[in-house]
Amino acid sequence: MSEKPHHHAPFWVDAAGRCLEEVRGVRPQVHVLTSPVAQVYTANLLLAAGAEPSLSQAPGEIEAFAERTHGLVVNLGMLDAARREAAGRALPILRRRGVPWVLDPVKVERSAERLAYARQLLAEGPRVVRGNAAEMPALGDDLHAEIVHATTGGRDRIVHGKRWVEILNGDPLMTRVTATGCAATTLIAAFLAVEADPFFATGAALLAIAVAGELAAAEAMGPGSFQPAFLDALHRLDRDALHARVRIA
Amino acid sequence: MSEKPHHHAPFWVDAAGRCLEEVRGVRPQVHVLTSPVAQVYTANLLLAAGAEPSLSQAPGEIEAFAERTHGLVVNLGMLDAARREAAGRALPILRRRGVPWVLDPVKVERSAERLAYARQLLAEGPRVVRGNAAEMPALGDDLHAEIVHATTGGRDRIVHGKRWVEILNGDPLMTRVTATGCAATTLIAAFLAVEADPFFATGAALLAIAVAGELAAAEAMGPGSFQPAFLDALHRLDRDALHARVRIA
Amino acid sequence: MSEKPHHHAPFWVDAAGRCLEEVRGVRPQVHVLTSPVAQVYTANLLLAAGAEPSLSQAPGEIEAFAERTHGLVVNLGMLDAARREAAGRALPILRRRGVPWVLDPVKVERSAERLAYARQLLAEGPRVVRGNAAEMPALGDDLHAEIVHATTGGRDRIVHGKRWVEILNGDPLMTRVTATGCAATTLIAAFLAVEADPFFATGAALLAIAVAGELAAAEAMGPGSFQPAFLDALHRLDRDALHARVRIA
Repeated sequence: MSEKPHHHAPFWVDAAGRCLEEVRGVRPQVHVLTSPVAQVYTANLLLAAGAEPSLSQAPGEIEAFAERTHGLVVNLGMLDAARREAAGRALPILRRRGVPWVLDPVKVERSAERLAYARQLLAEGPRVVRGNAAEMPALGDDLHAEIVHATTGGRDRIVHGKRWVEILNGDPLMTRVTATGCAATTLIAAFLAVEADPFFATGAALLAIAVAGELAAAEAMGPGSFQPAFLDALHRLDRDALHARVRIA
Repeated sequence: MSEKPHHHAPFWVDAAGRCLEEVRGVRPQVHVLTSPVAQVYTANLLLAAGAEPSLSQAPGEIEAFAERTHGLVVNLGMLDAARREAAGRALPILRRRGVPWVLDPVKVERSAERLAYARQLLAEGPRVVRGNAAEMPALGDDLHAEIVHATTGGRDRIVHGKRWVEILNGDPLMTRVTATGCAATTLIAAFLAVEADPFFATGAALLAIAVAGELAAAEAMGPGSFQPAFLDALHRLDRDALHARVRIA
Repeated sequence: MSEKPHHHAPFWVDAAGRCLEEVRGVRPQVHVLTSPVAQVYTANLLLAAGAEPSLSQAPGEIEAFAERTHGLVVNLGMLDAARREAAGRALPILRRRGVPWVLDPVKVERSAERLAYARQLLAEGPRVVRGNAAEMPALGDDLHAEIVHATTGGRDRIVHGKRWVEILNGDPLMTRVTATGCAATTLIAAFLAVEADPFFATGAALLAIAVAGELAAAEAMGPGSFQPAFLDALHRLDRDALHARVRIA
């Protein structure tokens, strides 16, 4: 791994700005197989960013959504049999279509069963895996080098083979709102629909999330008002705001 | 179909104002069989409007709720077997009791299985069907003339046999928040509990939603702050605000 | 039952202040088996208070969460078979570990099946039951004297054997937001993790909720803006605000 991050702040500002603009123009469909507790926030984040969410998990329906979507998220929060079934039906369709998907291994270190399933999913070729500092190490070597690794927290570290970058932006209030991480994962999926390099798409999405989080925290009175302020900030985020705040290591 | 809309702006302002007042006084129970992603917003919209939501889908329980509710919504978003089962148990009870219900055929054009089920439900006699411009045409002739057709979007068109009206109010931010359409459908069900003519109840509900949306957009900084502002606006909506903003074609 | 409430306002201000501080320091894990419509608000309330929520109901996973959690809620809203199964797996683990849990018998008076299940759960030894004035009486003598009874509404009455207290704080807007009661129940579970006396933990939690509700109502424009304001108020609630507003009978 190189000693310096791949690309500096202006590159990432440009990548995030371009992805935001293209998502607003293209309005990609993103299908999200996620926890009940993350569904509403995820859908509203995608809409605020300009994308079109769908969330169905029903057998007989998931196939139709998988045939048309421009991206997919599999989130393991509150994992249940219906979601596993839906992922099992959707992923072969995405593979055939060459459409990228992102894995969010929520609390995978807390349950042996969930960990075993996450490892099985890694073999199905997610383009990106985003988790926190407890979740990501639990995946071990199954998280192989072809996959973009995004470990988020106080600082976000994104690694792809020998390439890496760290994003220092963000705000502690982001940890006091449920599904913030899940929402970040979903924006990665939306950016993958408009940016072919998954390392660039992931860094751009996490920079956009972290800067929107700072802008929202500056407006918010606490974690309650943070959430609407965050969606507002993401909705109007542009290169100027990214440029003014970007902190990359 | 007549060339002019049935009833002009003052009529619809009066209908919406009266329905809002009566819902606040009567506090009708509205049972909502809906998508996980729409449940919270739907419940909060009904509470903000003065109605009392219930959302149970459990076999053995749905019957007890169906026996007492003053209205029901069947929403097909993220359709699953449990919701079908619940609808199958509730609808015969509503038919026997003569209580109206409303169908929301979410993304019915996207899945053959969902479309087949929607057509089956149309035969069970919903009083109103509300969908968008992609969903409503997919239902074809099964959407027969006895049912009120409400097609919402940039403008809302409500048709009942030879009667029709178009509501021009609304704001684009409404499309950047998930479950806005589902919420509108739910207010129709609440208004049906206090207004016997389903054409009037539907037009009144959609006018109330569209004007509340405009009022909220005037306060909001984006799609995040729009949602609480919308519930606030609906909660205090009155004839004066309706009169000041109504635009009917 | 004694004629005077057990402990006066300064005692309860101190209890609530101490519990809030300890939850923020200890960050207890609280596992919540609840209705889909309450999950997001519940999780965000726990995060705003400083606790760490988990919500999984999956067989094979619930056991791992039950082994580590510092408290648990069983909420009967929209009760389904999966939640019953999860409770059946979690409660024996909590009993063995000596970890307290709280029952929220949502709308138990509305369904014979739900009532029968609630009675069965009472035999499993919840430390506290919180419900409204329709729900609590439906439980009858199965709600035995060892359990803390918390009946919330215009005023909150907490009874534990011969001890009782009434909290007069609160605001009507709290009834116009879904899952407010469920959220209150969840804070009781968080406070039980840091306060051994369940009567004190329950009174302290309901005082904190009611004062946060008053503070939020003072900021809010309606039920939409009330909800973020409530989470903000709870997040920063301290002894000074409790002292300034407490009303105990």
